[in-house]
Amino acid sequence: MDLAQIQSKLELFTSERDWDQFHSVRNLALALVGEVGELAELFQWIDDSKVSAFLDEGGRDRLGEEIADVLFYLVRLADKAGVDLDHAVSEKLASNAVKYPVDKSRGVNTKYTDL
Amino acid sequence: MDLAQIQSKLELFTSERDWDQFHSVRNLALALVGEVGELAELFQWIDDSKVSAFLDEGGRDRLGEEIADVLFYLVRLADKAGVDLDHAVSEKLASNAVKYPVDKSRGVNTKYTDL
Amino acid sequence: MDLAQIQSKLELFTSERDWDQFHSVRNLALALVGEVGELAELFQWIDDSKVSAFLDEGGRDRLGEEIADVLFYLVRLADKAGVDLDHAVSEKLASNAVKYPVDKSRGVNTKYTDL
Amino acid sequence: MDLAQIQSKLELFTSERDWDQFHSVRNLALALVGEVGELAELFQWIDDSKVSAFLDEGGRDRLGEEIADVLFYLVRLADKAGVDLDHAVSEKLASNAVKYPVDKSRGVNTKYTDL
Repeated sequence: MDLAQIQSKLELFTSERDWDQFHSVRNLALALVGEVGELAELFQWIDDSKVSAFLDEGGRDRLGEEIADVLFYLVRLADKAGVDLDHAVSEKLASNAVKYPVDKSRGVNTKYTDL
Repeated sequence: MDLAQIQSKLELFTSERDWDQFHSVRNLALALVGEVGELAELFQWIDDSKVSAFLDEGGRDRLGEEIADVLFYLVRLADKAGVDLDHAVSEKLASNAVKYPVDKSRGVNTKYTDL
Repeated sequence: MDLAQIQSKLELFTSERDWDQFHSVRNLALALVGEVGELAELFQWIDDSKVSAFLDEGGRDRLGEEIADVLFYLVRLADKAGVDLDHAVSEKLASNAVKYPVDKSRGVNTKYTDL
Repeated sequence: MDLAQIQSKLELFTSERDWDQFHSVRNLALALVGEVGELAELFQWIDDSKVSAFLDEGGRDRLGEEIADVLFYLVRLADKAGVDLDHAVSEKLASNAVKYPVDKSRGVNTKYTDL
């Protein structure tokens, strides 16, 4: 699905409910944090070795819901803050490629904090 | 931009650097939290009344970078956890529409925690 | 209340319930994130101008609960990771005093990210 | 160390630098999130099996710093929001004891989300 498509669906959803008044930038940032907290909670008692079983036993669907929630607030935040999502994504992909040259980054996880 | 397109770009980026070994589900969840922390930090000393000026004076670009970082880990997380992003997004949009009927949700922010 | 006192109360609470097995360092870090998400959620639709009223109308008690939850996981995390909390607090207070000299930091919020 | 003692040290630290003007409740909540993000980042590429070695090889000190940062904003937040920390801690310890009776909670991690 296209990010612009999600954005316009959420715009419609929000305006139909007159919720735009609540969607200030800092409100959306805090709401995003709340949803990321719910996503993190899914894995709080699932050791690395148990993640796979957890996902197969219903966890994958719950994770999908939390990921969607995070994505929605992220898209709304971009929208309300006037961030061009496609542009931001393209720019970051390009800058990451420069920041982490293939030959120097291979198999090394100590230096990077971004993808 | 399409989510599937971002996903495949990140897959390529990751495999070229042999970083797939680091991208376990819980690792990506923690990395996502780290990026959301950076996004939140942008607004930590910017009162609601100053957000607009902040965005216009360089904040919008920095926010775009943080949003992209969050999005990348979110997409990677979905990928590595076997979550079908398009499906998850469609399902959540549909369930939100049921959960928050237009007539009962108009202008009311006390009951909902999702978009 | 003393941090060491809270720590020993939580140790007892945990051991009585045989929960120590769940309290690995990464589990506690993710649980901490979950609680911080709940704290953030409290303020997600409360504009700066409405925070005071929110706190007076029941929000203060709810915030107190979330702060306690965050604190508990933070203390447990220190405990399980072998971090000496008193030492860490003293060290950070001292290093912050060096990092932010009074004369250069007065009224300036652009440079610091710590207290 | 006593929570009230930390609180008064931070009050002094803040007032000496005239930083009280930045410490609104929502600002502190967002700053807290930022610090929790830094804490989470420490563990993002450290699988469960590698946590112990990470802590022994310098990670424990870095974790101590992040824990202190989180604690400082948590204490400041309580202070500025008028939350009585000692009271909040005592109340939550008591309510957790009621919520998770020893006999029904032993070794069970599916039902609880709090300590």
